[in-house]
Amino acid sequence: MQQAARIQGLLAPVVTPFKADLRVDPGRLISHCRWLLTQNCGLAVFGTNSEANSLSVRERMALLDALLAAEIDPGRMMPGTGCCALPDTVRLTRHAAQAGCAGVLMLPPFYYKGVSEDGLFRYFAEVVERVGDARLRIYLYHIPPVAQVGITPTLVERLLKAYPSAIAGMKDSSGDWNHTKTFLDGFAQSGFDVFVGSESFLLANLRNGGVGCISATANVNPAAIDQLCREWKNPGADARQAALNAVRHAVAQFGMIPALKQVVAHYARDPDWVTLRPPLVQISNTQVKTVIDALEKLSFRMPGLACILHQPN
Amino acid sequence: MQQAARIQGLLAPVVTPFKADLRVDPGRLISHCRWLLTQNCGLAVFGTNSEANSLSVRERMALLDALLAAEIDPGRMMPGTGCCALPDTVRLTRHAAQAGCAGVLMLPPFYYKGVSEDGLFRYFAEVVERVGDARLRIYLYHIPPVAQVGITPTLVERLLKAYPSAIAGMKDSSGDWNHTKTFLDGFAQSGFDVFVGSESFLLANLRNGGVGCISATANVNPAAIDQLCREWKNPGADARQAALNAVRHAVAQFGMIPALKQVVAHYARDPDWVTLRPPLVQISNTQVKTVIDALEKLSFRMPGLACILHQPN
Repeated sequence: MQQAARIQGLLAPVVTPFKADLRVDPGRLISHCRWLLTQNCGLAVFGTNSEANSLSVRERMALLDALLAAEIDPGRMMPGTGCCALPDTVRLTRHAAQAGCAGVLMLPPFYYKGVSEDGLFRYFAEVVERVGDARLRIYLYHIPPVAQVGITPTLVERLLKAYPSAIAGMKDSSGDWNHTKTFLDGFAQSGFDVFVGSESFLLANLRNGGVGCISATANVNPAAIDQLCREWKNPGADARQAALNAVRHAVAQFGMIPALKQVVAHYARDPDWVTLRPPLVQISNTQVKTVIDALEKLSFRMPGLACILHQPN
Repeated sequence: MQQAARIQGLLAPVVTPFKADLRVDPGRLISHCRWLLTQNCGLAVFGTNSEANSLSVRERMALLDALLAAEIDPGRMMPGTGCCALPDTVRLTRHAAQAGCAGVLMLPPFYYKGVSEDGLFRYFAEVVERVGDARLRIYLYHIPPVAQVGITPTLVERLLKAYPSAIAGMKDSSGDWNHTKTFLDGFAQSGFDVFVGSESFLLANLRNGGVGCISATANVNPAAIDQLCREWKNPGADARQAALNAVRHAVAQFGMIPALKQVVAHYARDPDWVTLRPPLVQISNTQVKTVIDALEKLSFRMPGLACILHQPN
């Protein structure tokens, strides 16, 4: 069976909107996904910055179904499906594969700490075997500052050997370029697609055989990041990289997830966007003002956002 | 409404048996719970050592229902119900409260790290409000080596003030006696029940106003731990504590959860007990032999276990 071309370039871990009573808000999620697609940004729904780990399995499946029902292209989606419990990961992964998603972004099981590489291999192997779908493409998700449990080069080597079709790549959110470089040097040439978890490393990643980035900031600054993905070989790439870094710094200075929602709310003129599920909490009004002022100084805009977000669904 | 006397003394985070295909095994779980009750040991089902975080919400609910159907007394149960996602925690907690469980043991949401105390307060407050059941008794679960996210004294103070009936106590698995002492000194006199997470600290806990322990080793050594709970004021308590420590050390030397299952399998003469869900893996045969030999040297026994485990359910 011939596999379609793999998803590459820019994806956003799409922020998840909640209603005032903390229920998920499919309408606003659909609108935000539509806007991201107009900016040539793929949809890594249910990532860390989507508050996916604050959603139940049922909520994630219902939201994916709502996106599909709204005719959002699954070929542009890479839902997060990695949970602590094997049956949950299998259920979400099977659902995504059957929906025709371009791939799934899979956290390792993250509750038990100090687990062996053998245990992690067995876990991912069980997922692949139980899902049993030739369309499955797994992107391993390495984010040790949050998950603590990580993905090692020897684990990737074993998984690639056992499941060369299913293991498609990884997202490296270590924030450690030397770590990313190890994976690029070891596996990129064999078709293992490395995404960095922050656009700060985008140019370095593309210059060393990586394929793109899956970054929180893509929720608000997709066009400029996408442009670097496409034009990284052209003159001016380093200046573009510096401009991306400035926006990222302005947004993230008081905590990424609450700030992203505030920025979307501000530029969409839609204050209901700011709700977070506990344990996450709002940043202060003063902090919000500092973020927006910093972005204004950078002449930051989110073109077309307000129009799309105010469409009826 | 008059509340019944609170659960105290010894509880086991009951190990969860799996079939060869990794499905949960309700029959063996029921048998093990029955044996623990004969040893005067309460049932903290779905704890860390139960591999609860490797179970789906549906599996936990179905197992609790199976225990209730087998007429295991919910007044002797404290199921673990704390998940990353608020709706999951609410669902499991409501189910346990409605079943008449003595309490629930609640992890904080543990995916996002560095969350604020305010965010954790809001999280637990939402659980209490949404469950909305006067029978609810929450035991906050502090296990920073695993969950990373912990319970602070000021969080307990705020929660006790807001929900004096629902917030019943805590399990401290920090392994740091000074930490436990801070909670005992601050809250024990006001009726906040402190359990230690290891019987190593049992005597110290009881001497300082604590109410018992919820310990992995209770799965295999319940009678002796229970005896110290009841006779801690009598002469010989320090020698009993030393004997408990020796058994704990023998069991845990190569990793607690796989060893517990091996010890149950050995003394129940039931080799099917040893299966773990990935990412956890078996200890080696040599390690198993070392554990069993060490226990034999201590004249360790699990009286009555084999009879109960081989009863038809």
